[in-house]
Amino acid sequence: MRILLIGGTGTIGSAVYSLLAENHEVVRGTRSGEDLKVDMTVPSSIREMFTRAGRFDALVCAAGQARFGALAELKDKDFAFTLGNKLMGQVDLVRIGSEFLADGGSFTLTSGILAQQPIVGSAAISLVNAGLEGFARAAALELPRGQRINVVSPPWVRETLVNMGRDPAPGMPAAQVAKAYLKSVEGDHSGQVLAP
Amino acid sequence: MRILLIGGTGTIGSAVYSLLAENHEVVRGTRSGEDLKVDMTVPSSIREMFTRAGRFDALVCAAGQARFGALAELKDKDFAFTLGNKLMGQVDLVRIGSEFLADGGSFTLTSGILAQQPIVGSAAISLVNAGLEGFARAAALELPRGQRINVVSPPWVRETLVNMGRDPAPGMPAAQVAKAYLKSVEGDHSGQVLAP
Repeated sequence: MRILLIGGTGTIGSAVYSLLAENHEVVRGTRSGEDLKVDMTVPSSIREMFTRAGRFDALVCAAGQARFGALAELKDKDFAFTLGNKLMGQVDLVRIGSEFLADGGSFTLTSGILAQQPIVGSAAISLVNAGLEGFARAAALELPRGQRINVVSPPWVRETLVNMGRDPAPGMPAAQVAKAYLKSVEGDHSGQVLAP
Repeated sequence: MRILLIGGTGTIGSAVYSLLAENHEVVRGTRSGEDLKVDMTVPSSIREMFTRAGRFDALVCAAGQARFGALAELKDKDFAFTLGNKLMGQVDLVRIGSEFLADGGSFTLTSGILAQQPIVGSAAISLVNAGLEGFARAAALELPRGQRINVVSPPWVRETLVNMGRDPAPGMPAAQVAKAYLKSVEGDHSGQVLAP
């Protein structure tokens, strides 16, 4: 397959890139323009990326920023940023990308364990993660031409915990998380939340 | 208790008002100003309502508009409207209201069955309903002074189905739905999604 991977340079994205690239052609769309340049918060930038990308069989998104912070300290602009970036950025990849995705192709978005298992500071992130899962369940009913959509909900990732200076023991290696993305791309699921 | 009910005039809101008023003092905040006037999409309007409301022991929200429509036909502005109204309107009632709510008081928001059981046309609504549930789970960990928060997720309501000209048989009477709101207000739950 020819796969468009949005955000193939972060901790999870790099692992997804390596795994998908074993058996597929993977084109990366990133803010810095690894293969294609895209700002997923700007619909016209998304459309331009798809126009340049040519035909593709799957879109995988491992990108999307969100603001972590105490509920009492998160500002209006922190919620707006998080909703505009990780949430509507991914929603718009689907809304716009559906025109361009091949028949029977798939979308795979990224939510996260904080949707169901919040921690102090995760209010905005838990909101968008859960919202993405609700969106995907619904969008699966309407995507045209046999297109599918799933959301991968990664647990805490070992490499991320190391970067945060925390005990990596409870974390899952990014390479293992990546397998859920491959399962979404190569499987028959739709409307599912896949937990690695 | 003294309860502030946002949106006590709709199908569910009227039933919640009647049930809560049996044993509590209920003050209604609505756009038309039943008791207090509020536009829940405008943070300054929410703050003004709370300033005028005086002390209260529970806030219940049975308001919040959202756009229904085919995924391919929902516009950017439909998503923006839905996120700004049912989603961030309710989130802002909590973020701002927490300053004003009594010690040990509760917030009760409204999501809906489409969060988990979408139908064709519900993509924006499923997104915000699920997002509200994620937010409430997280906010429950951080609310100060023993405050609680839950979300009621109503099923299809009998009166609503009648208004839509559909078969009311699968619907639940609004008076029965209202009991979940009472349970949230009078119980000890927090961070829960209550299905009537």
